[in-house]
Amino acid sequence: MTQPSKPQIHHSEIVAQSRLFKVESNDLEFSNGEKRTYERLMNGIRGAVLVVPVLDDKTVLMIREYCGGTQRYELGFPKGKIDEGETPEQAALRECMEEVGYGARQLTVLKSVSLAPGYMTHHTHIVIAQDLYEQAAEGDEPEPLEIVPWKLNEFDALMAREDCTEGRSLLAMLLAREFLQK
Amino acid sequence: MTQPSKPQIHHSEIVAQSRLFKVESNDLEFSNGEKRTYERLMNGIRGAVLVVPVLDDKTVLMIREYCGGTQRYELGFPKGKIDEGETPEQAALRECMEEVGYGARQLTVLKSVSLAPGYMTHHTHIVIAQDLYEQAAEGDEPEPLEIVPWKLNEFDALMAREDCTEGRSLLAMLLAREFLQK
Repeated sequence: MTQPSKPQIHHSEIVAQSRLFKVESNDLEFSNGEKRTYERLMNGIRGAVLVVPVLDDKTVLMIREYCGGTQRYELGFPKGKIDEGETPEQAALRECMEEVGYGARQLTVLKSVSLAPGYMTHHTHIVIAQDLYEQAAEGDEPEPLEIVPWKLNEFDALMAREDCTEGRSLLAMLLAREFLQK
Repeated sequence: MTQPSKPQIHHSEIVAQSRLFKVESNDLEFSNGEKRTYERLMNGIRGAVLVVPVLDDKTVLMIREYCGGTQRYELGFPKGKIDEGETPEQAALRECMEEVGYGARQLTVLKSVSLAPGYMTHHTHIVIAQDLYEQAAEGDEPEPLEIVPWKLNEFDALMAREDCTEGRSLLAMLLAREFLQK
């Protein structure tokens, strides 16, 4: 099957904006002449990082924190936006120090993933952090985070937990497991 | 460590809205007295489904379609919103017929995942569809979707593709592989 060429964008404008969010509306014409208006959420162009801190061969560090979207406590990996001038590895190191109190001598990007490519620009670099050393940094968390060591071979137990729902964190756990087994 | 009690929500209001998106702002007070204002994106309460259609023991069906968020063609699994009155399984069956032209006699929810629990309410049910039969249904796609059969044991090749970035789809592939191996 021949891949169609990309739709043309005839018009683009910001249709809603808040402190955190910006929505862009685009008038598209597909190569077959079909027209659609698609909205998309504009996230920061630098993207975000999600870090898997590897404590030892069998154990990674997760955090349990209050999430303002689902309005409940969720178990997942440390994450945050990439600041201006930072590489994904530098952002991952900073988040690791701020959220679990460890630095890392070895940082590897496993994959950059999109969240919902149909209507978001957002992408997250999944970074594995190895060769840890104790080094805390002050974050902007409203309350102390609960640090939860998790065994890599206990994925089924993680899946079964009602407070562990984040797709990115579950994927990161599986990618880290594969990476460490190689 | 004792789990803190949930923050109190003192005030909540819609601060931005477009055709597709709605942003809610919440004034929170954490149990230690810290105050924050968090915005969150309100997605439909029924959520979405992502379907892994299993063609045979070794092969699943993916689609390649234009994504309005990243503005490029992306490889991923069929997905869509749950319509009013539908169960996740019914929505998965409908999406499967509309997007790859197959019905399924066996539908199993593997996990319900959140996208970004920090600032979105969104959740997606990952459904595996087995025992397929040919049955197409009309969808609302602007152009024909490219259907891409993918071998379950070729995960590394999928990871290496630049047009396969969606975290949910990569997770779904790994969950389906585990499920089918059991």
